[in-house]
Amino acid sequence: MSALDVLKNKAFELDRHDELAHLRERFYMPHGKVYLDGNSLGLLPRGMTEGLARLMNNEWGDDLISSWNKHAWIDMPEHLGERLAPLLGAAPGQVLCSDSTSVNIFKLLATALALRPDRRIILIESNDFPTDRYMAEGLAQLLGSQRCEVREVPGDRLIHSMSSEVAVVLLSEVNYRTGRRHDKRLINASAHQAGVLTCWDVAHAAGAMPVDFDATGVDFAVGCGYKFLNGGPGAPAFLYVAKRHQNQVSQPLAGWLGHQTPFEFEASYRAASGVLRYQTGTPSVLAMRALDIALDCFDGVSLIQLREKSLTLSAFFIDALKMHPAFKTVRLITPEQDTHRGSQVAVCHPAGYAIAQDLIERGIVVDFRAPDIIRFGFAPMYNTFSDVLAALNALAESLSKETYLAPRFQVRAKVT
Amino acid sequence: MSALDVLKNKAFELDRHDELAHLRERFYMPHGKVYLDGNSLGLLPRGMTEGLARLMNNEWGDDLISSWNKHAWIDMPEHLGERLAPLLGAAPGQVLCSDSTSVNIFKLLATALALRPDRRIILIESNDFPTDRYMAEGLAQLLGSQRCEVREVPGDRLIHSMSSEVAVVLLSEVNYRTGRRHDKRLINASAHQAGVLTCWDVAHAAGAMPVDFDATGVDFAVGCGYKFLNGGPGAPAFLYVAKRHQNQVSQPLAGWLGHQTPFEFEASYRAASGVLRYQTGTPSVLAMRALDIALDCFDGVSLIQLREKSLTLSAFFIDALKMHPAFKTVRLITPEQDTHRGSQVAVCHPAGYAIAQDLIERGIVVDFRAPDIIRFGFAPMYNTFSDVLAALNALAESLSKETYLAPRFQVRAKVT
Repeated sequence: MSALDVLKNKAFELDRHDELAHLRERFYMPHGKVYLDGNSLGLLPRGMTEGLARLMNNEWGDDLISSWNKHAWIDMPEHLGERLAPLLGAAPGQVLCSDSTSVNIFKLLATALALRPDRRIILIESNDFPTDRYMAEGLAQLLGSQRCEVREVPGDRLIHSMSSEVAVVLLSEVNYRTGRRHDKRLINASAHQAGVLTCWDVAHAAGAMPVDFDATGVDFAVGCGYKFLNGGPGAPAFLYVAKRHQNQVSQPLAGWLGHQTPFEFEASYRAASGVLRYQTGTPSVLAMRALDIALDCFDGVSLIQLREKSLTLSAFFIDALKMHPAFKTVRLITPEQDTHRGSQVAVCHPAGYAIAQDLIERGIVVDFRAPDIIRFGFAPMYNTFSDVLAALNALAESLSKETYLAPRFQVRAKVT
Repeated sequence: MSALDVLKNKAFELDRHDELAHLRERFYMPHGKVYLDGNSLGLLPRGMTEGLARLMNNEWGDDLISSWNKHAWIDMPEHLGERLAPLLGAAPGQVLCSDSTSVNIFKLLATALALRPDRRIILIESNDFPTDRYMAEGLAQLLGSQRCEVREVPGDRLIHSMSSEVAVVLLSEVNYRTGRRHDKRLINASAHQAGVLTCWDVAHAAGAMPVDFDATGVDFAVGCGYKFLNGGPGAPAFLYVAKRHQNQVSQPLAGWLGHQTPFEFEASYRAASGVLRYQTGTPSVLAMRALDIALDCFDGVSLIQLREKSLTLSAFFIDALKMHPAFKTVRLITPEQDTHRGSQVAVCHPAGYAIAQDLIERGIVVDFRAPDIIRFGFAPMYNTFSDVLAALNALAESLSKETYLAPRFQVRAKVT
C-alpha cells in the first residue's frame, strides 16, 4: 500500500469516527472547493439569507423605527455579548459586541492606561497582527511620548519584559502567521505579578477552542466575528472587560449608546454601568443580526470537542508533512506541540506565493502571507479529514512541479 | 367648503403636480401607516432583500475570501465615498464611508486639533445632538485640559465665539429637535476669518437637500447613512475631509485598513494617501452593500428638486398649523423661513409624549423628544402631501381630546 493510500485510509477512518461531522451541515459549502481559509472568513451558515430577509422585510420594512424596541435592536450589542460569553469562558456582564477589533483595541488600551496612571508603556509582541500595533501607536501618538510609548519585544521575551513601567501588554493568543498559541495563564500571571494588565486579541482563537477568559485571569480582550465565528465579512467585533476593572474609569470613545440613558438626550455624559459603557455609535443591525444567526451554529457544541477535532486535523496534516518526502522542501513554522498550536498550520517555501496560487487553482483555498508563508486554516466546525487529505495531495502535486521561477510577490488584497 | 376640505383639495393638487411622486415606488411602504420618521430611519428600498441575498449566496457563500478582490469588497469604503460625494457637493477624493458617526467625529476632531497645535478649544452648540458633544468631551478628557477643552455656546452666539483659542467648531447643520438649519457658508466664513476649522454633522440634512461641502467651504464633516439616505438601521456613516487638509497629519484611529499597503502586513504604519487614511478596522460588507443598494434610489434625482419638495411639504404643514384653530395649543419651534428649515417640523405641547403615542396609534408614525417635542419628518423621496394631510387630521383629532393628564415622560428607547 502506498504512502498516500495509508493517508487516505486514515482520513476515511477519522471522518467516520468524527462525532462533530454533522456540524458541517449547518453551513453552505462552496461549489468544487476545499475551503481551508475559515481563519480568514468563515463559511455562510445555512438560514442566514432567510434570517436576514425576515429582518429586512418584517422588522426594517414593516415595523421600521419601532423595531428598536419591538425587536430589541437596541439590546443587540449586549445580547450578542451574552451569547458570546460562554464561548469565551466569561461570566455574564463582561462581553460586548461592538465596532471593529481595531476600534475596540483603542478603547481598552486607553482604559488600561487610565487604570495605571503612573505607567506609560504599552508592551506588544513583534510580528503580531499589524492593526493591533497600529492602534497602540495611534493612541501613543495622540497622548504624547511623556504619557505613552509602545515597546516591542519578541514573543519569548514577553514574560521577562513585565516591568513597573508597563501599563498593559497587548498580544494575540494565536499568531496570525505561524499559528503559535500563547499560554494565557502563564502570561497573565507574570503580568499581574508586575502589576501589568493584559489585553488579548483572540481573533484567531475564538470559536475554534476554549479561550477561558475568566479562568486564566484575562484583564481585557478583543476578537472578531468573521473568522471561526462565521458572522460574515467584516462582522462586528467584541470586547471583554473583566468585572474587577469595570466602572472605575471612562473610555474615550464614549458615544451616546454608552450613556446610561441614551434616549433622554442629556447634555452631560453619564457612562452606562459595566461593559455597556464601551458602546459608541449606532451599530449596524444587519451585521449584528448576521452574527446572531451565525452563533446558532454553536448550539449544543462543546468547545472542548471542537478543540480536540481542530488539533487532530492539524496533527494529521503535520504528521503527513513530516513523514512524506514529497513535502521535504517546505518548512513547518507552526508549533508541533498541541498546547502551543492554534487552529491553522503554516509552512514556508521560497515559492510560497506561486504555490498558494497553484493550490487555489486546484480548488484548495488557502492563503499566503508575505514573504513566503502558506496558511492552512482548519475550522473544526466544518472541515473534514478528507479536506486535509485533499490539501496534502494538492500540495504534493504542486511541489512536484519541476521548478518555480523566483516568484514576484504581488500580494493580493486579502483580509486575514 | 370646510377648512379641512380646502386642505384636502390642496394636498390633492400638490400631489398631482409632484414631479418626484414616482420616487415613492422605489421603496417598500409599511402596511397601514403614514411614515413621518424618515429622519430617524429611512424606508426599506425595493431590491434590498434580493440584493443582499445575492451578496450572501454568490459572494460570501460561493466566492468567500476571494470576494475581497473579485467583488471589490475591499474598495467599498472608497466606492461608497465616491457615490456619496455628488450628494454632498464634494469633488472626488474627499468622502469615505466608515464606522459610525460618533467614531468619525473622534477622528476628525483629533485631526483638527493636530492642524491647530496652538489652540485648545473645541466649540460646540448647546442642545446639539448628544453624541457629538460626548465624543468631543471624550477626546478632551483623554488629552487633558491643558491640551483640549470643550466650550459650549448657544447657536446664535457661535459666530461671535470664534476666537484665537478655538481650534474647531463642531455643529449640526440641521438641529435634531427643532429642525433649524444653519447657514454653513456664513459660519464657515466667520470661522475661517478667525483661523477656526469647521466640522459639520449633516446627519439630518444629507439626502434631503444639497449640503454643498466644497462650495460653502466646509473643512470636515460627518453624517449617517440610515436617515434620509435609507441605508438601513445603523448603516455605515461617512466622513469628509477637504482636500486642503489631507495628508498633513495622521488620525488617531489608524487601523490596518488605513495603511498604504494593508496587505503587506508591515510593522510600521504608513498612512494611506488622502481620505483613505481615515479607515480603521474591517467594515461590515453586509452593511456597506445595503447602503450601496440604497443609494440606487438617488439615481437621476435632483437634490434641488428634492429640497424644493421637502420645503413645500413642511410649508404646507406649517401653514395649516398656523391657520387652523384646531392647532392653537401647539407651539411651533421650527423656523418658518425656508432657508432656516431642515426637512422636519417640530411642535411642542405639554402633553407631547401622550400626543405622539396617540398619533402612532392612529397610524401616523412620528417621534417624541423630551420634554415636550413632537417631530414630523418629511422625506421628500417618498412622503406625499396626502401624508401631510393625514398627519394634520390625526393631530387635530388628537388635540381635540378633552384633556391630557399630565404625562409621565417614560421615554422609550428610540434612535434618532
